[in-house]
Amino acid sequence: MSVAIVGAGPGDPGLITVRALELVRRCEILVYDRLVSPELVLKATGAARIARDGLTQADVNDLLVHHGRRGRRVVRLKGGDPFIFGRGAEEVEALAAAGVQYEVVPGVSTLTALPGLTGIPLTSREVSAQITVVTGTSADGGDLDYARLAGTPGTLVIFMGLGRLENIADNLTLAGRRVDEGAAVVSRLSLPDAEVRTATLGTIAAVAQGLRSPAVAIVGDVVAYADRLQAIVLDAQRAA
Amino acid sequence: MSVAIVGAGPGDPGLITVRALELVRRCEILVYDRLVSPELVLKATGAARIARDGLTQADVNDLLVHHGRRGRRVVRLKGGDPFIFGRGAEEVEALAAAGVQYEVVPGVSTLTALPGLTGIPLTSREVSAQITVVTGTSADGGDLDYARLAGTPGTLVIFMGLGRLENIADNLTLAGRRVDEGAAVVSRLSLPDAEVRTATLGTIAAVAQGLRSPAVAIVGDVVAYADRLQAIVLDAQRAA
Repeated sequence: MSVAIVGAGPGDPGLITVRALELVRRCEILVYDRLVSPELVLKATGAARIARDGLTQADVNDLLVHHGRRGRRVVRLKGGDPFIFGRGAEEVEALAAAGVQYEVVPGVSTLTALPGLTGIPLTSREVSAQITVVTGTSADGGDLDYARLAGTPGTLVIFMGLGRLENIADNLTLAGRRVDEGAAVVSRLSLPDAEVRTATLGTIAAVAQGLRSPAVAIVGDVVAYADRLQAIVLDAQRAA
Repeated sequence: MSVAIVGAGPGDPGLITVRALELVRRCEILVYDRLVSPELVLKATGAARIARDGLTQADVNDLLVHHGRRGRRVVRLKGGDPFIFGRGAEEVEALAAAGVQYEVVPGVSTLTALPGLTGIPLTSREVSAQITVVTGTSADGGDLDYARLAGTPGTLVIFMGLGRLENIADNLTLAGRRVDEGAAVVSRLSLPDAEVRTATLGTIAAVAQGLRSPAVAIVGDVVAYADRLQAIVLDAQRAA
């Protein structure tokens, strides 16, 4: 396979898959995202390493097609999983349209890693059988559909810039989501300086002041589990 | 860390994480799920290997606590990710309650791996900015809330037994989801005999006849992407 679209996992270099690391080690061209661990980038010892920062998506697509057509071993290394809000589909479509053979190697998504690394399960047989995942910017470039999100049961996970948190929390509350519903912000998941802060939907924006990107918000009654589990889980991560 | 709650990934042994494989290799006690690859189970060369099949959840919790208290290196190896419908939270709670130190190693969830390995993105800037994930059995042991699911926009992913597919598709349609909406069933994701069949919500139950477990259903307009990408992606997986 010439081009591999590869997930690097949520940040900790140990959370890349065995298959992905093998491909990184023996690639000739590595195109990597800003949030990928430098330790992983350095594993591509024989490769030209190209940072994605500063390139447009069209530039990236062209780069993959260009080297793929020449039969070079190309790895496109993306934070988290390539297809969970990762625009992997656009790159795969460009390769397919150009007739370039490719392989996809899924990664541990930030979404997947959240519960284990924060102590907040996204589902629970007691309080939530449903997860709804959105980005802070909706598909049409407009805003989130807050009325629908307020009426949707279960856990809500929001990938977003920290700068949008107050606006999102306010709008969810105005649309009818309970002001005392559990809410959490997770900053820098799986990294040594990871931090989780829990509050309610009404207070989360104030409580999350000063946290660093990348960040994810969780809204739902499952956040209550964090009180029981969060301390021990985070201590465990640090000790590991 | 004495006990590790570890995700094995969706089935392909190359999709376990580097950290997880390291823990499996040097554990003393391995408790593994039925869907975990035998190749991974055999990596625990020095360990007592205990199949989870036939044990109750309480048995498993007791086993982890028992060996954890004695300071044994225990790995609880679960299919997919331990916290995405994996009951990892129950095991972690049992360990925390018993004062046993533990570590969680997230895995590539079947949910995460779906788009890359099937050619069906779960989100798309054009047609869906939202994923809703449910199990075929709801939190209270009753049925799914079909009225809500019919009114929820975006992509719907259903972890379920194949035997429930017809009932679920019928109920979604009766509740108002379009009969001509895209629907797919993915069987044995990431394994050499993986299979994806696409149809509409009205025809998917008939089209999926004969597929083998484990399986996941996808409902949404993103399934239309499969026509463009599925063949090349599945060929790629087989060639890899």
